[in-house]
Amino acid sequence: MENIIDTIGYCAALLTTLSFLPQAIKTIKTKDTSGISLIMYSMFTLGVFGWLVYGFIKNDIPLIMANLVTLSLAGIILRLKIKYK
Amino acid sequence: MENIIDTIGYCAALLTTLSFLPQAIKTIKTKDTSGISLIMYSMFTLGVFGWLVYGFIKNDIPLIMANLVTLSLAGIILRLKIKYK
Repeated sequence: MENIIDTIGYCAALLTTLSFLPQAIKTIKTKDTSGISLIMYSMFTLGVFGWLVYGFIKNDIPLIMANLVTLSLAGIILRLKIKYK
Repeated sequence: MENIIDTIGYCAALLTTLSFLPQAIKTIKTKDTSGISLIMYSMFTLGVFGWLVYGFIKNDIPLIMANLVTLSLAGIILRLKIKYK
């Protein structure tokens, strides 16, 4: 049973982390950022940075890895939103 | 020291959870979803649902509360994206 629970956790982490990849690719290709909320990506990027700091302090490798990926993807989208308003 | 670490965790959770609120409000107001990735919000909503199931199994109240909020906000954005393509 423990294995199934861990698998659900890993799948959830993988999905929520990698979900920002298609958005980053779409935004890089289309430069269409009008519908994207600057406040959302500012708050989200700050929050993910917070999770990264939290992961480092707790020495939690999965938390560090997941949030490093999400931070770079969300950071790309945030920069494009600022650049193309 | 433990308090500071917990505070960082709570702030990170609050920011990443509530960050979807400004995006939901913007999308409801503008109906502008062209720049939003359908694949992202499909993956993200499924992932957040996974975290919710994980939270229920582990009986982890903060995880359940945070992901209930995020699931409803991300669900609104996903429905609007499907409706307004």
